Amino acid sequence: MYTYQQLFNITKKIFLTIGCNEADATTVADVLLAAELRGIESHGMLRIADYYNLWKTKRINVNPTISVVHETPSTAVIDGDSGLGMVVGKKAMQLAIDKAKAVGTGWVSARNSNHFGIAGYYSMMALQNDMIGITMTNANPLVAPTFSVDRLLGTNPIAVAVPANKQPAFVADFATTPIARGKLDLMHKKGKKAPDGYVQDKLGNPSNDPNILTQGGAIVPLGGDYEHGSHKGYCLGSIVDIFSAILSGAGYGPWVPPSVAYLPVKENTDVKGTGHFFGAMRIDAFRPASEFKEMMDKWILTFRNSKPAEGHEKVLVPGDPERENETLRMKEGIPVMPMLIEKVNEIAAELGIEGLK
Amino acid sequence: MYTYQQLFNITKKIFLTIGCNEADATTVADVLLAAELRGIESHGMLRIADYYNLWKTKRINVNPTISVVHETPSTAVIDGDSGLGMVVGKKAMQLAIDKAKAVGTGWVSARNSNHFGIAGYYSMMALQNDMIGITMTNANPLVAPTFSVDRLLGTNPIAVAVPANKQPAFVADFATTPIARGKLDLMHKKGKKAPDGYVQDKLGNPSNDPNILTQGGAIVPLGGDYEHGSHKGYCLGSIVDIFSAILSGAGYGPWVPPSVAYLPVKENTDVKGTGHFFGAMRIDAFRPASEFKEMMDKWILTFRNSKPAEGHEKVLVPGDPERENETLRMKEGIPVMPMLIEKVNEIAAELGIEGLK
Repeated sequence: MYTYQQLFNITKKIFLTIGCNEADATTVADVLLAAELRGIESHGMLRIADYYNLWKTKRINVNPTISVVHETPSTAVIDGDSGLGMVVGKKAMQLAIDKAKAVGTGWVSARNSNHFGIAGYYSMMALQNDMIGITMTNANPLVAPTFSVDRLLGTNPIAVAVPANKQPAFVADFATTPIARGKLDLMHKKGKKAPDGYVQDKLGNPSNDPNILTQGGAIVPLGGDYEHGSHKGYCLGSIVDIFSAILSGAGYGPWVPPSVAYLPVKENTDVKGTGHFFGAMRIDAFRPASEFKEMMDKWILTFRNSKPAEGHEKVLVPGDPERENETLRMKEGIPVMPMLIEKVNEIAAELGIEGLK
Repeated sequence: MYTYQQLFNITKKIFLTIGCNEADATTVADVLLAAELRGIESHGMLRIADYYNLWKTKRINVNPTISVVHETPSTAVIDGDSGLGMVVGKKAMQLAIDKAKAVGTGWVSARNSNHFGIAGYYSMMALQNDMIGITMTNANPLVAPTFSVDRLLGTNPIAVAVPANKQPAFVADFATTPIARGKLDLMHKKGKKAPDGYVQDKLGNPSNDPNILTQGGAIVPLGGDYEHGSHKGYCLGSIVDIFSAILSGAGYGPWVPPSVAYLPVKENTDVKGTGHFFGAMRIDAFRPASEFKEMMDKWILTFRNSKPAEGHEKVLVPGDPERENETLRMKEGIPVMPMLIEKVNEIAAELGIEGLK
């Protein structure tokens, strides 16, 4: 177990040492530690090594000049100059929030960015401004459209945060697939089979091999198969890709760059890096914020207090499990796999800074 | 088989006769016939009897005074005055489009409305303006959140239409559940079992009874069960409900009024009718429309030309099947079930107008 502060400090120090300025290193550590606190380890400090290797291979620019390429009162396109996704993401979401302050809503599509951690982080930035926050990002292709064998979509998450009054905020943050790649890797390592409805083989037939992605297979969209609405998951992943990349000019479909250095970037000179999409809607652009937040409390209580299914103790509202983790881990510390500590300390040693004990 | 014009004329005539003005009757017929053409019969002329009975029981107002309750440059809330959903929906989407023309994007939440037919209709209104169109609506509760037995969400669809250049537009229009109620009814009538992952019984256990909704059961969210991401479908249905109803003050969760007259309205004086949400984003608020549409063509071709799975001939892009139906039915006519023709003619007779032959 480590304290939040210990993990925050080493993370920030690593990014400072590779050349990020104070503000950017703080942002990266803040986003990665938010994932650790919320129990989404797949998007936490595990990613430090990936970002570090992308920096070493010059695919991440730690001193980006992030620019607004185009804008209207309620929209903008941002070019991230190959910066760390967190740095680009936070700037882009802040711009969406500023536009919402002025004209009610703000919508920003970003190109030339990189993996940005948990999508929910940016959506939650809207909450303190009494706004609804919306975040999407495309990601390297692992998912085959319904009826296809080609990997053309990422797990393309959507995150929506909605403020409430006395109740904690509604925070939905989910991939548009039944599972994430990390869970498949874990099943493979444990020698387990993947359940039906997760993956398909290289011919597009259902598979239970969690390692099938290394043999031309693919993850299926949310829904699993056509009979259960996988075409709806395919629609969702496509919408995320279009809003993130076609609006901004980022890499789309098969041309989203991998978020790891050991996979090559697929050449396409028409497009630039990873794409994200951010939205902020001011509550009082629709109705008085107090009215909305009181009704949102009632909405949340209606769902949380509904009758649980047999074998379940309670019904959750999106954001509940992550918030419970956050409270617990802030108090009791954050469990980190020894292997991850080793990896982080290896990087620290390479950079000549003190590692974690 | 009937021609588009025959079906349009009788539909329009019915709504004119119950008191709609010329423009509103045209709108209702236009939306219902768009569903017939696109092969979504569940949202076509089948609904005439439902709307007619809601009008007879004074739950639909055919002469609504639709008002803008609140607005900013990019947002508005509309009160539909219990009007037909199509009339409210078209006005609300037009307002979103007008706001997008002025400041880049427009977002309108509507309350006090009714069932509005296919969500895709309104999203597609954005296309001719070189805008992306977004539509959501809540609906009467049939869906239980993950781990719950209570029916708190409707099939709450999302529709997104994106313009392209030479390729036809991308049009996604999908419920946030594995299936719609209509398909369950059909299985029940045919004496078939429902596949796994569609419905649960009154205790929240998986069921294969397509008639389980009449016995306290519920439809499950997209994903089917927790292991396959039903909590993500639950998030999606919730987002639709919040954007449609909490932003506008419409009925939410269990308080969305039924879209049929034989089910009573659940009393809740805090809220008003059915809620919708509409968005329009001007393409050139992000980048030149021609650039975007050319890249969108490439996106569409990348997906449509991807390698089909074994046993499949082609990979579809969202909107393809509906557009093929549209072309075919406009040319060869629209098949209508004899039972539906009888029903429509019964209503026509009641109203003293000529029925369909």
